[in-house]
Amino acid sequence: MSNYPRFNFRIDATDPYSRARVGFLTTPHGGLETPAFIFCATRAAMKAATPADLLASGTQIILSNTYHLMLQPGSELIARQGGLHKFCGWNGPMLTDSGGFQIFSLGHGSVADEIKGRRTQNRVQTLLKITEHGAEFRSYLDGRLHVLTPERSIQIQRELGADLIVVLDECTPFHADKAYTARSLALSHRWGLRCLQEFNRGLDHGDERQALYGILQGGIYPDLRREAAEFVNNQPFFGHAVGGTLGGDKQQMQEVVEVAMRHLRPDRPVHLLGIGGISDIISGVAQGIDTFDCVAPTRMARHGAALLPKTPNERINLNNACHREDRNPLWDACTCYCCRNFSRAYLHHLFKSHEILGMQLITIHNIAVMNRLMHDVRHAIRLGKLTDVKNQWLV
Amino acid sequence: MSNYPRFNFRIDATDPYSRARVGFLTTPHGGLETPAFIFCATRAAMKAATPADLLASGTQIILSNTYHLMLQPGSELIARQGGLHKFCGWNGPMLTDSGGFQIFSLGHGSVADEIKGRRTQNRVQTLLKITEHGAEFRSYLDGRLHVLTPERSIQIQRELGADLIVVLDECTPFHADKAYTARSLALSHRWGLRCLQEFNRGLDHGDERQALYGILQGGIYPDLRREAAEFVNNQPFFGHAVGGTLGGDKQQMQEVVEVAMRHLRPDRPVHLLGIGGISDIISGVAQGIDTFDCVAPTRMARHGAALLPKTPNERINLNNACHREDRNPLWDACTCYCCRNFSRAYLHHLFKSHEILGMQLITIHNIAVMNRLMHDVRHAIRLGKLTDVKNQWLV
Repeated sequence: MSNYPRFNFRIDATDPYSRARVGFLTTPHGGLETPAFIFCATRAAMKAATPADLLASGTQIILSNTYHLMLQPGSELIARQGGLHKFCGWNGPMLTDSGGFQIFSLGHGSVADEIKGRRTQNRVQTLLKITEHGAEFRSYLDGRLHVLTPERSIQIQRELGADLIVVLDECTPFHADKAYTARSLALSHRWGLRCLQEFNRGLDHGDERQALYGILQGGIYPDLRREAAEFVNNQPFFGHAVGGTLGGDKQQMQEVVEVAMRHLRPDRPVHLLGIGGISDIISGVAQGIDTFDCVAPTRMARHGAALLPKTPNERINLNNACHREDRNPLWDACTCYCCRNFSRAYLHHLFKSHEILGMQLITIHNIAVMNRLMHDVRHAIRLGKLTDVKNQWLV
Repeated sequence: MSNYPRFNFRIDATDPYSRARVGFLTTPHGGLETPAFIFCATRAAMKAATPADLLASGTQIILSNTYHLMLQPGSELIARQGGLHKFCGWNGPMLTDSGGFQIFSLGHGSVADEIKGRRTQNRVQTLLKITEHGAEFRSYLDGRLHVLTPERSIQIQRELGADLIVVLDECTPFHADKAYTARSLALSHRWGLRCLQEFNRGLDHGDERQALYGILQGGIYPDLRREAAEFVNNQPFFGHAVGGTLGGDKQQMQEVVEVAMRHLRPDRPVHLLGIGGISDIISGVAQGIDTFDCVAPTRMARHGAALLPKTPNERINLNNACHREDRNPLWDACTCYCCRNFSRAYLHHLFKSHEILGMQLITIHNIAVMNRLMHDVRHAIRLGKLTDVKNQWLV
């Protein structure tokens, strides 16, 4: 890993009963213990939480989205402001994605749209075309034309300055057939090589601030996922990210991840893109995933859903009338600011009254729960007792 | 003040050049140095700020509104939850108002509506009638009929359990003529006596948790304000609140307050209801006002306006493009979390991106600025240099 002198990934413990491992990932902005959850500060801001709130429950790493930031306020501005870390007041490890996911999901529609049968034809078409050169799209903010190429994605991520950055790929939709997915995979690999080349240009100029992740696409097709794994294994990436559609249900997701993990080299950190349910994380960890990200913990908080272990659906909804007079905290074993100070009855009142504070307090709680989950997972792996976590957290 | 064994108001210093004084008001939930600003936690919640955020910049006291809380979640529920302090996680001094202001301002329209010529005829009429008995109104939430009497207002405020509570009065509209205002004042005084009687029933049962403020009405008519002052002076109130319309501009407000303060006995704390501009506070302090409250500092924060000394309009608007690349904090002399960690450029980005965090950070700042202002005011009074505050804060 001589391309990454300021980074390191060390595996400290492995689970004898699964592919799970505890690791330590070093970046120029500090290290993180893995498995870790990466919180989504989409527009260089956690929604309804400050960096201090994140640190209070031991958050190790956050991410921001290149797509949003390239459009507002622009990566050049963030560079002039001293980079993403300084701009948003987070001095720990950060990741940015390539910008591709939003371009393609706004163009193709999301997997959820497809599964739920939502029609996307009536949307404004923001994705205009995908060529060998890159992806042409219109800004969702002002309609201006943009072209995101592999080189441009790396340049933007260099300007943003996150520690961990990701190659541009095409995210194929769930309904894509195998022929399309295979052609797309080949394109993504050519893009991946162009990203590496652009990344190396930075290295040649002595820019060692960042480490590049390669992405595995291949949809739900095992042989394509294997091909994707073999491609990234042989390229000088620092880590790997499993992306694209993982299928239509949890079973299929596990199968897709299993194939990917079986073929990936074990010495690099592996990120699973966009997954953050408690049970999904526990099974992903068992398959060897090192980091996860998902908007769900903080998004559901803003709708009044508080994460809770041993609960159907992994959450309770504070809007429900059953909490009206409940003097208990969200979770009596939780040490977060919300659980130390406020009752479910108060949180119910805040949501009934549409108070922003309700969103803030449950966001704080859900961040703490995710950090606690990952802490429990790491502890259990070290003890060889990952199934204990299942029993403690899942119904 | 034998009615208030757990309360005290002590004057520590007076300004030789004005009626300004520094005092200390003791309540069962701690004391506060006056002059003080009371932040509005309308529905038992500060908007976009936690109790910890309030404490971080030295907030001494907050208030909640009886009108909102009697409708949602109800004062009985809050009593069963252990009272307002416990419910909302604020263990310091608190005030509740009588509930009257919202009933009458929703019924009559506000002074701002009148001044700005807003038509209120097309609104749903929520105020149904005012009788000797009390005010009949419909809930803005579900249309249910409520009657707020002086006795009921005190009972509700007893259930809520704030330290400082206020008598029910009729808030006359700005356009009220002198005859109406005089009749209304007499009604408010009869209501004030009924409030005292109901309050004393609590004292008789050994409830010494609360202290009662009498209200001065009288509109813009000097002789009525004098009459109001003489009425409250002679009743066993703990403190006085100057309420009702204070006129149509700052000049008239100063005249109205001046008349009231000239006639009020000096040994009781005086609150000026609903006033919170920096220049208004400085002139109110000079007239002898001890506490102020206003939603403006936190409301304007949610619209991107940050308080700043020596600035036209007392604020800057972070939505404005001039802040797009500004690496400075809101105020370089401010020690709040926002100013220690974030640039104006970042705050501008947050508002352009409609991020809740922008509201949180400027709310934290504006709270800190108000606390700093009141600190500077108290310090200056002790030194006999209140005009220094004017020079340091106003344009």
